[in-house]
Amino acid sequence: MFRKRTNADEAKDFFLRTVRPVDGIEVLPIGDCDGRVAGEDVNAGVDVPHYRRAAMDGFAVRASDTMGSGSNSPVLLKIDNKIEKGTCVRVHTGSPVPDGADAVVMLEDTVVRGEMVEVFSQVHPFKNVGEIGEDIRKGELIITGGHVLRPCDIAVLASLGIEKIKVFKKPLVAIIPTGEELVPRGSRTPGEGEVYETNGLMTSLYVRKWGGVPILLDIVTDDPEKIKEAIQRVSGTDMIIISGGTSVGKRDYVPAVVESLGTLLVHGVGISPGKPTALGFVNVKPVVCMPGYPVAGMVALYYFARPAIRKLAHISDEPDRVVRAVLSEKIAGRTGYKTFARVKIETGTPYSNMWSCKVFPLSTSGAGILSSVSKADGFVIIPENVEGIDKGEEVDVVLIE
Amino acid sequence: MFRKRTNADEAKDFFLRTVRPVDGIEVLPIGDCDGRVAGEDVNAGVDVPHYRRAAMDGFAVRASDTMGSGSNSPVLLKIDNKIEKGTCVRVHTGSPVPDGADAVVMLEDTVVRGEMVEVFSQVHPFKNVGEIGEDIRKGELIITGGHVLRPCDIAVLASLGIEKIKVFKKPLVAIIPTGEELVPRGSRTPGEGEVYETNGLMTSLYVRKWGGVPILLDIVTDDPEKIKEAIQRVSGTDMIIISGGTSVGKRDYVPAVVESLGTLLVHGVGISPGKPTALGFVNVKPVVCMPGYPVAGMVALYYFARPAIRKLAHISDEPDRVVRAVLSEKIAGRTGYKTFARVKIETGTPYSNMWSCKVFPLSTSGAGILSSVSKADGFVIIPENVEGIDKGEEVDVVLIE
Repeated sequence: MFRKRTNADEAKDFFLRTVRPVDGIEVLPIGDCDGRVAGEDVNAGVDVPHYRRAAMDGFAVRASDTMGSGSNSPVLLKIDNKIEKGTCVRVHTGSPVPDGADAVVMLEDTVVRGEMVEVFSQVHPFKNVGEIGEDIRKGELIITGGHVLRPCDIAVLASLGIEKIKVFKKPLVAIIPTGEELVPRGSRTPGEGEVYETNGLMTSLYVRKWGGVPILLDIVTDDPEKIKEAIQRVSGTDMIIISGGTSVGKRDYVPAVVESLGTLLVHGVGISPGKPTALGFVNVKPVVCMPGYPVAGMVALYYFARPAIRKLAHISDEPDRVVRAVLSEKIAGRTGYKTFARVKIETGTPYSNMWSCKVFPLSTSGAGILSSVSKADGFVIIPENVEGIDKGEEVDVVLIE
Repeated sequence: MFRKRTNADEAKDFFLRTVRPVDGIEVLPIGDCDGRVAGEDVNAGVDVPHYRRAAMDGFAVRASDTMGSGSNSPVLLKIDNKIEKGTCVRVHTGSPVPDGADAVVMLEDTVVRGEMVEVFSQVHPFKNVGEIGEDIRKGELIITGGHVLRPCDIAVLASLGIEKIKVFKKPLVAIIPTGEELVPRGSRTPGEGEVYETNGLMTSLYVRKWGGVPILLDIVTDDPEKIKEAIQRVSGTDMIIISGGTSVGKRDYVPAVVESLGTLLVHGVGISPGKPTALGFVNVKPVVCMPGYPVAGMVALYYFARPAIRKLAHISDEPDRVVRAVLSEKIAGRTGYKTFARVKIETGTPYSNMWSCKVFPLSTSGAGILSSVSKADGFVIIPENVEGIDKGEEVDVVLIE
């Protein structure tokens, strides 16, 4: 049916090698940068702390003045607002250590007697004093270009007085739903042989979740010229996802159109569902042709579009959220295919105690039955060379985002 | 120092028991509902498919007309646009099966001869025909109230022609930064003894990430009356997070203020860093008092604020993103405390092959050193009764979001 069935991992590697991360940069206020990717190295412009600070509540002293003090032999110091021989200054955690002082005696090691304080512990120079630049030294590399910024990183930037930062632009991902059977959502009730367009909506939401900016086009009918025009219209984007028209029926023109405009790398992939997936590029832009059948389309998105968007966005691989569980019914794999079996977690609180967590497979028939995904908590991925997984075996469930 | 040190898990359970999920509902377009929580059960208003549809490209037939056909004995049918005895209608996958037909013969089992088609395979009634409601039956429960909506769920809603859905309102979380040493970001350069306010910004971003709507108040100085006023000002929110003033120094008024306005459940928790954390509620609203020291504050957010926000938002527990790795240096735990050690993943591609993944601990000293978090990829959490983890042991690294 298809030119050939390319092994899933090979197809992915082959495809991802053609994807080049976007090089556009924008400057944003740090408060808008959660999840964004730093577009440059950031070095500290100041020392943190920028003054010598007390690490404890207590009294700043000259360490030499406390020599010889002990639990039975306190040294008596005068409480003052500057440091001289025999004086001390009250400090609390974080407050500046006054000039002349080189240590802080903890409050617990003192007893205040009017204007005087008894010090019951001898301190060494630098004790309980945070030196200038102790946390972050001026000039130190704080954020490396390519780092995905988290709230804690943004707080570090803020602590250095940095209010804006260069980040990579999010990749623009055009989504082209194709199919003469499709009715735009909210327009009219589908007649016989028609369905609402939903893959475009689903894909848009996944693109956004995975770090891209979706640009959803109107439905294109099954006409090679119209499909070609649509692809050319979005030549300014960083990636194109086309839904439908990838099979080998009379109305399946999409892979041929991609080939006519650029390069078709793969048509027919060893993923189940999702075999009709095609991958290629047009003008150096990666193109994912996802099957119109929603479940197959979704698997193609997860397996190919997600890593491509993340690579475009400079976001490194990240582990899926996985739950380890025991299978309560056998699942069959499809030999030669990486099988994405939809499963439901059936026991109470699955995440807190993975060993008590059981999953059962949902009907794997029907790549068109999106409700089987909606009912599923995750996928169990069965490798190509495995016939199936028996009841009672432990499996990793990749949670569906 | 503190009233007592409550065990971390006990403190969390005790605190979370007081948290009641929000009951406000809003109606939103489905396209805006990724990650939102369904506020009601949704039942299908229509059958999917709403017509009998072909499951294959081929010819719709009366099954009885194909009786007796085989690879050497084709039955000849006339290609027509309606079904009668001896006629058939060309169909493709998804198109309506015309009245009178009860099966579809696959294209592969036919040969077209002008206006006639040779059928080489006998089909049973219902073969390759998707019945009305096969995927989703009208009235069937599609989305259960409390389900966190994913793009694939939203696509199912769209396929049913549903354009709006009731979702639970996001919880409003007020954030009150306190401390006379704090300088508002972007106002002026901090002098000696001063730092930029950053916990409020960090907390706002985490609140948003975890499903809440942050409301960040201006800095409140260390004055019990001012803190009280600030808490009363946000009485309309669903939760309050107060940063700073939770320790036992002269300027630490926050726990006492919470107690005066409501109930202080816990002050002093067995997490390290983060011991000065206090938990309570005011007017049935949960209150997390996080230490002002940023790392301690962040651990308190992760351990207490996150599950509370998620419970308020009706979002069930979800597993962290975890990487299993080998420790390349010993980490010490603090006896009696759940220790959150910051670690950095040091080898190349950690996620694709967990067994080759090595981590080393970052300096655990200094709860004030936020850069130790920014440099960290995740936490290794050392239980209360464990002295430390040796070099070479396998650990779970909880990635910092």
